[in-house]
Amino acid sequence: MNPVDLSEKFSLFDEFWKPKIVAELNGQYVKLAKLKGAFVWHQHEHEDELFMVVKGRLTIQLRDRVIDLTEGQFFVIPRGVDHLPVAEEECHVMLFEPKTVLNTGNVKNERTVETLERL
Amino acid sequence: MNPVDLSEKFSLFDEFWKPKIVAELNGQYVKLAKLKGAFVWHQHEHEDELFMVVKGRLTIQLRDRVIDLTEGQFFVIPRGVDHLPVAEEECHVMLFEPKTVLNTGNVKNERTVETLERL
Repeated sequence: MNPVDLSEKFSLFDEFWKPKIVAELNGQYVKLAKLKGAFVWHQHEHEDELFMVVKGRLTIQLRDRVIDLTEGQFFVIPRGVDHLPVAEEECHVMLFEPKTVLNTGNVKNERTVETLERL
Repeated sequence: MNPVDLSEKFSLFDEFWKPKIVAELNGQYVKLAKLKGAFVWHQHEHEDELFMVVKGRLTIQLRDRVIDLTEGQFFVIPRGVDHLPVAEEECHVMLFEPKTVLNTGNVKNERTVETLERL
């Protein structure tokens, strides 16, 4: 593979809530996503999920607390834990998670992206 | 777990070439390391390894080419591929790799760190 430049990859898309695959290793994907607004409450039964903020701010609501992240900060949402990502302003994140993760987890609705684009 | 702030974690250590574990998910570790100078040629037989540059510049020598990375860029070294990380000046990196990875891979010498510190 070639080196991946985060800024360059983020410049290639504008859609919100449509994660793009930028690398694969050890059965995991590295994904980039632009977020704005509130997503949907969901969980991933078998996968832990890492959200790192590259630009902006992200709030991850859990049932019992709220995680606030800014640039250079990440959080791992353990498998089975309900979460709701919310970005008041546009936010850019890097995700690290197993290839099997579906963006909306146990929920399927209009936000679900079954097939992810690779950049 | 709590959110992880990269700057805060990097402020907690000064040693070079001693990766610190800052998170665990899906059988993988997220590690932080400060690098300066040349490491040793090695490979990981069964593990792909992601190097992301958080601060400074990193050169990863492969047998057939050289990868130059700066802040916000990453590279995945496939399993079985010989590599030599070199940082002319101090460089801070984030690593994603399976928990089984030994820093010097197939080589054991004075640079090998058998037990990693958790921050």
